[in-house]
Amino acid sequence: MPRPLKALIAHGGGPTAVINASLAGLIGESRRRGFAALHGARFGVQGLLDENWIDLFAFNSARLAAVADAPGSALGSSRRALTDDDYDRIIAIFRRHDIRCFFYTGGNGSMSTAAELARRARAARCHLQVIGIPKTIDNDLCVTDHTPGYPSTAHFFACAARDVGEDNRSLPSPICVLEVLGRNAGWVVAATSFARRHPDDAPHLIYFPERRLSLDRIAADTERIYRRLGRVVIAVCEGQLDETGSPFGADVDRADNALHRLSSNLGHTLARLLSQKLGIRARAEKPGLFGRSCGEFATPLDRREAMECGKAAASAAVEGHSGSMVAIRRDSDRPYRSSTFLTPLDTVSRAERLLPPDWIAPAGNDVAEDFTRYATPLLPRLKRYARLEE
Amino acid sequence: MPRPLKALIAHGGGPTAVINASLAGLIGESRRRGFAALHGARFGVQGLLDENWIDLFAFNSARLAAVADAPGSALGSSRRALTDDDYDRIIAIFRRHDIRCFFYTGGNGSMSTAAELARRARAARCHLQVIGIPKTIDNDLCVTDHTPGYPSTAHFFACAARDVGEDNRSLPSPICVLEVLGRNAGWVVAATSFARRHPDDAPHLIYFPERRLSLDRIAADTERIYRRLGRVVIAVCEGQLDETGSPFGADVDRADNALHRLSSNLGHTLARLLSQKLGIRARAEKPGLFGRSCGEFATPLDRREAMECGKAAASAAVEGHSGSMVAIRRDSDRPYRSSTFLTPLDTVSRAERLLPPDWIAPAGNDVAEDFTRYATPLLPRLKRYARLEE
Repeated sequence: MPRPLKALIAHGGGPTAVINASLAGLIGESRRRGFAALHGARFGVQGLLDENWIDLFAFNSARLAAVADAPGSALGSSRRALTDDDYDRIIAIFRRHDIRCFFYTGGNGSMSTAAELARRARAARCHLQVIGIPKTIDNDLCVTDHTPGYPSTAHFFACAARDVGEDNRSLPSPICVLEVLGRNAGWVVAATSFARRHPDDAPHLIYFPERRLSLDRIAADTERIYRRLGRVVIAVCEGQLDETGSPFGADVDRADNALHRLSSNLGHTLARLLSQKLGIRARAEKPGLFGRSCGEFATPLDRREAMECGKAAASAAVEGHSGSMVAIRRDSDRPYRSSTFLTPLDTVSRAERLLPPDWIAPAGNDVAEDFTRYATPLLPRLKRYARLEE
Repeated sequence: MPRPLKALIAHGGGPTAVINASLAGLIGESRRRGFAALHGARFGVQGLLDENWIDLFAFNSARLAAVADAPGSALGSSRRALTDDDYDRIIAIFRRHDIRCFFYTGGNGSMSTAAELARRARAARCHLQVIGIPKTIDNDLCVTDHTPGYPSTAHFFACAARDVGEDNRSLPSPICVLEVLGRNAGWVVAATSFARRHPDDAPHLIYFPERRLSLDRIAADTERIYRRLGRVVIAVCEGQLDETGSPFGADVDRADNALHRLSSNLGHTLARLLSQKLGIRARAEKPGLFGRSCGEFATPLDRREAMECGKAAASAAVEGHSGSMVAIRRDSDRPYRSSTFLTPLDTVSRAERLLPPDWIAPAGNDVAEDFTRYATPLLPRLKRYARLEE
């Protein structure tokens, strides 16, 4: 009989509204499967290195059920990139504590780190199972149908576009730019299309970071809509680039990592530029981090699937898997059903999954039907507001 | 027996999450009280002048109940200021259509307009009852205990501060500035204090537009918190001014009216300045208009009171009142009970009600207990998130 498993979990990258559901699923299933221990590293790999760990079997199921409903990362996370020395230290730490399984919850960057750790452990003849748990609001992981965290943030921004649209319809304001989370992939901004019910509903223009965009082009689109409706709501990603590859002159923080621009003011910058160019007033909204951390907009489907991913990770460990990430397979659209499967870390760690080109309308300022078909089962039906006259 | 009343309602200024509840209350009560007609001007005084009106008795009660739950203004609103000529035209229009009662839903500006119209109608010997219905998320109307629209927006920003705080605690980021709605009055930013449960919860600093503030002061406060916690969440109003009376160099749109700065980037500007000064990274979030139009955060108390204000306006008209605004009286804190009363338009149209000086903590970076006592009954209990370790 194999030795009971001692395992450790860490979170990497930005938190989501449902990452704690994955954690709760993992803890519950690990306990049920007879793990000897499950440690949680506080604040990601930093806590792992500092041996700042907590015993996750110390919490009762009522506490875990409550934590599963909380947004943010209950363990804490970090964006620290690992050095060669860090990898060696982690392997030594795992050896010393007889940790034989490492769960890492995160996006592409975290899966690359997990893959590298698995390789180095193998090279060092250290027995270590490495299993990834998917998490990113960006929905840019390959192989998996979608990523836990995405449905909730997509729903948040669809509601934001709907409500900013209602405001803009009530008191028509020439231009309103809604800045949406997303650096390189347009999955979240695409979801703002679900805000619409009537033909003239916001957002009137949706742009995608997959396509570079000239200010002239945005201005021409905006003017056309403005002439027709007297108001324009534009949904655009924080990571949108112009045709020269620059963020329209917006402030972009590249201090630690070119991929992590932490303080964009792209929406406001675009609003100012459009205002100057068209001679009409513009404003911008940027819900920002509220869009990935809002408890009220976390969706039941997202929470359930996040929890299933955590459970599947524990099962995969018991079954002896390593070097894999849990992924989601869509089994049916109507009724929506999904299941989990394992995919090698290498299949998800190397590339960002962008919106397929034909999921963007040919004009580049709206989604195409394929996106709507894909996302419809993932989002709850938006609350619709009555109007005096429909 | 007096002639049955023909009336008209218009909305002024920015919409809220509950202005339609006031409209529905007014329509229902007007019908019940036997008004001959109630017209609704589309898009505020502009629609009034254009005679772009709809018959509000054409809608059945199911439709009205549904509209009462919708954020934004179902009639549409405007910020148009009236000229002398406009007042004359309105009086002529009312005479021609035998409109004898005008309801105007809005804030200080709208109440000034209503008061002026009442004066001019009197001078022109035109029989016109003018009745104000209070509405502003800013909560800056005098006399009334609070203003419909405020509780919902206060709740939104309390939740935003809580969730941005959870995100910031999960993945500590040195500085996060949350820009909150509010130009001159700090009622909404003060409500972010309800985000806290634990001593180190966000927001760590709350600033008030009632007090000018130097960058040096904010930087010193921020550095102190940063040294202790490694992270700082700052709540600040879009209208915050520095000690020279300027918005820290932020873009401020004063195109149409000094009171209506429509496109502030104050949060981002402060984040950039603090980052430069302290040498640590900073970001900013600006939920903006989503904070006044979000249906999901509209509170039952706010909706109920907004509806009561609409009903009370209809009753006041039947009772022959004019030149008055409906106001809210707090009858009891525990259990919370309120009722409506009438106050002369002149008592509310001339001044903005700012936070009383002693409702701000002496250090100027937090609320004082009197504010908490005032606001507690107005806000729903915030959903609290479980943590692994409390």
